[in-house]
Amino acid sequence: MTNPMILDGKALAKKIRKELKTKTKAFQKTPGLAVILVGENPASKVYVSSKQKKAKALGWHSVLIELPSETTKEDLTQTIEGLNKDDSIHGILLQLPLPDHLSADDHIPQIVPHKDVDGFHPINVGKLALGWDGFVPCTPLGVIRILEEYDIPILGQNVVVIGRSMIVGHPMAELLLKKRASVSILHSKTRDMKEYTRNADIIVSATGILDLIGPDHLGRHCTLIDVGITRKDDGTLAGDLQYAKLLESPHCKAITPVPGGVGPMTIAMLLENTLKAFEASTR
Amino acid sequence: MTNPMILDGKALAKKIRKELKTKTKAFQKTPGLAVILVGENPASKVYVSSKQKKAKALGWHSVLIELPSETTKEDLTQTIEGLNKDDSIHGILLQLPLPDHLSADDHIPQIVPHKDVDGFHPINVGKLALGWDGFVPCTPLGVIRILEEYDIPILGQNVVVIGRSMIVGHPMAELLLKKRASVSILHSKTRDMKEYTRNADIIVSATGILDLIGPDHLGRHCTLIDVGITRKDDGTLAGDLQYAKLLESPHCKAITPVPGGVGPMTIAMLLENTLKAFEASTR
Repeated sequence: MTNPMILDGKALAKKIRKELKTKTKAFQKTPGLAVILVGENPASKVYVSSKQKKAKALGWHSVLIELPSETTKEDLTQTIEGLNKDDSIHGILLQLPLPDHLSADDHIPQIVPHKDVDGFHPINVGKLALGWDGFVPCTPLGVIRILEEYDIPILGQNVVVIGRSMIVGHPMAELLLKKRASVSILHSKTRDMKEYTRNADIIVSATGILDLIGPDHLGRHCTLIDVGITRKDDGTLAGDLQYAKLLESPHCKAITPVPGGVGPMTIAMLLENTLKAFEASTR
Repeated sequence: MTNPMILDGKALAKKIRKELKTKTKAFQKTPGLAVILVGENPASKVYVSSKQKKAKALGWHSVLIELPSETTKEDLTQTIEGLNKDDSIHGILLQLPLPDHLSADDHIPQIVPHKDVDGFHPINVGKLALGWDGFVPCTPLGVIRILEEYDIPILGQNVVVIGRSMIVGHPMAELLLKKRASVSILHSKTRDMKEYTRNADIIVSATGILDLIGPDHLGRHCTLIDVGITRKDDGTLAGDLQYAKLLESPHCKAITPVPGGVGPMTIAMLLENTLKAFEASTR
């Protein structure tokens, strides 16, 4: 028995950011990313600041638009429309969740699809399903890149995706299907997850339920991808996987840690999507 | 042991068409369906004529636009744009496949989404994924209606979809997922279908491979939906399921015949989508 491979998303993300920095130098113009943050959600502030910092580190034009929590639908609409028209901005990101009186379903479709670097616009959702070129949500894109980096095969493999959100689970299943995995999508209504996970070659868990998956779920030499993040009482971060126990399982082929696995890849893919939007705008 | 239920799509389609006829009478205007047929594909001619006949039987305005196989991209574009503007037409259907020199990917997106009664436009594909109101492809819609008519539960069930086409398999999986089944999508690269089918409560097969699924694939009391159609050497039609053998299986809870199962439901759902487009236009 060999030890499981630790899939180091942090290192891969760093490598990708370095490549993006090099690519950026080939252009005379500067890529621009705008992040809209409405209200005072502390977790959102942390994410947004991290995205900003990474974009600036590439020498990019990075704009943070902070709107008060009482922002009206009309004001947010105007802000988005302004950024749509702004030639110095190539990627627009509306940080979710929005305050309760605003709806993402109203405002995400207002972002012009070619600046929708989160890949949440209905037309980009449709293009992903169709296999057409468009913007793909960053987290599942990051998962695919990790699998590719570590030469983990996807075609013909049994893959289980736990969670069916439009941010992770759903687009994850789409990407895996395009790469011709056999894909099962599970969720809170699934009767018996083990019926699926024990036959799986790859499991992607994106529920945010601490310690959901343990050694008992495995039945094959399996790659485990953890997209869940929970802050524990002691302040540390942990995921959906019983990481320490799974490391000891003979069925664990490879595993992502939390933190340092999928998380850093999400921002790297956001930057990559933004460069893609920028490159398209220079053509 | 009780005999399997035969899911009679033909009878259900007839009932739905009757309801549509009644609903139509409440309006002073007439719903209009336009079908564009390019070239001389004999199977397409049969389908198109059947759609036309059923629409006319409801007293609807039904237009068939036959274009020669050498039709150019520009001509087809003009035809679609003409129908987009035509207020007497509420549903536009571009019969597939197109001749080799034309691409469905070029022309389907030219149909205005609110007349796209086939549900193939990227924005309708995206809306289905998001669970937003839009047009859903007719065949998977018909499968859901059959399951509902016969009170076959979907929520929390293990469902296997075989085939990942944008016409059947993919939207089928979307609809089942919205109804919170656990959904597995299998296809030609799947290593061992039985690993999935033996745990399934519902199997939807949409491959066009004659006799693909037999009693040996079942492991539970299972509902079997056949979307495959093959014309056999003796001229008769048959599906993906080994129908006669499956009827004898103790694991077969319910089954659709071919013909007379899913097929008639596809046209009924096309008519329903057209009435929906018409109703929206009267608001």
